[in-house]
Amino acid sequence: MKESDNLKEISVVTNILKANDRIAHELRQGFYKSGIFVINIMGSPGAGKTSFLEAIIPYLIDNDLKVGVICGDIATTNDAKRISKNNIPMVQIMTEAFGSSCHLDATMIHTALGQMNLDGLDILFIENVGNLVCPSVFDIGEHARMVVLSVTEGEDKPRKYPNIFQKADCVIVSKVDLLPYLKIDKDEIYKNLRWVNPKNEIIDFSYNDKIYLDKWMSWYKKFIKV
Amino acid sequence: MKESDNLKEISVVTNILKANDRIAHELRQGFYKSGIFVINIMGSPGAGKTSFLEAIIPYLIDNDLKVGVICGDIATTNDAKRISKNNIPMVQIMTEAFGSSCHLDATMIHTALGQMNLDGLDILFIENVGNLVCPSVFDIGEHARMVVLSVTEGEDKPRKYPNIFQKADCVIVSKVDLLPYLKIDKDEIYKNLRWVNPKNEIIDFSYNDKIYLDKWMSWYKKFIKV
Repeated sequence: MKESDNLKEISVVTNILKANDRIAHELRQGFYKSGIFVINIMGSPGAGKTSFLEAIIPYLIDNDLKVGVICGDIATTNDAKRISKNNIPMVQIMTEAFGSSCHLDATMIHTALGQMNLDGLDILFIENVGNLVCPSVFDIGEHARMVVLSVTEGEDKPRKYPNIFQKADCVIVSKVDLLPYLKIDKDEIYKNLRWVNPKNEIIDFSYNDKIYLDKWMSWYKKFIKV
Repeated sequence: MKESDNLKEISVVTNILKANDRIAHELRQGFYKSGIFVINIMGSPGAGKTSFLEAIIPYLIDNDLKVGVICGDIATTNDAKRISKNNIPMVQIMTEAFGSSCHLDATMIHTALGQMNLDGLDILFIENVGNLVCPSVFDIGEHARMVVLSVTEGEDKPRKYPNIFQKADCVIVSKVDLLPYLKIDKDEIYKNLRWVNPKNEIIDFSYNDKIYLDKWMSWYKKFIKV
């Protein structure tokens, strides 16, 4: 690649991010006025983002919270189908329609909101495209960022993909029920998470254990009071 | 994002891809003249790309093949350290130096080759950045593409990230030793892989079982004869 190509790319990417950030800022203001807390959920493909939503949504409904979901995927409506059994407001964004984008951006969220009834919503989860790199760059108007990291991915991922963990308010360490069958040291995962970001919340997660949902709820209550 | 921004992005991305493809083409010709078969290994973070290399490299050395490796990561030299114990030619690309790029491109490979002794090499593995989306778009001068997909990622990933599987010559279904502990139907993974690409090679893999390396070797021998 010629240097001139690189420079051209950087200049245009800067313009796009500026436009994205402006829309994201407007979205965030709108959410705030409507009393909706928006959480951007990121993580590798198969990390357990949708499984976390499948577990937390009925739990939040039981706690009298009204929840909505926007799912982002390149193709298929699988995630939306898994979540839709809760009968909540939800929209699936297929980024095939946006050049098979590897991340969600603020314009896609703006488009999706036009197809959703947000009345009385307390929490809107936005499940990003499975990718530990690109989604971290794009503000989509969220108030908090979560990363789901599966223990099966190995101990060193926070150090290898630092940006997404640096910007996360909460990290879900998922599939901890598989630890007995893996040569993985969970303490090492925690150490690497802390090395990258000493401040954010780290919560274990396993689909069948409600105790982790209680911990998530404590974090959520603490966070919205800030 | 305004439509004009979108159009601008598309036009510049096209230019960059054209420049990348030209360099990739030259790299491929050079590899061919030197008798080096180049394999681009892609997959999610933690799918098992480095583990596959840790298993296959000693196996190939035992089969009198000379192997080299280029590892791509955003940060850290962890992968290179894991592989370097084999005492083979290798270089770690940290894309932090290239704007924390989410993929390798042909220019990065060209730069890495300047630091490698390729004399007598039979196979050069290039381990791409962990990402199931962006690396599929960039030709890096390879002769074959492999995707490592862990069974822990769930059955539907080939349908959700179709591009990378469509372009793969060989798919490694990794961590099959964990299947007894997961609610995952391997047949369903295979069906989805076949739905996306009916032709490519699919090989199971588990770190401790040599039979899978024999299968990979059969594929390799078949492929280089084509």
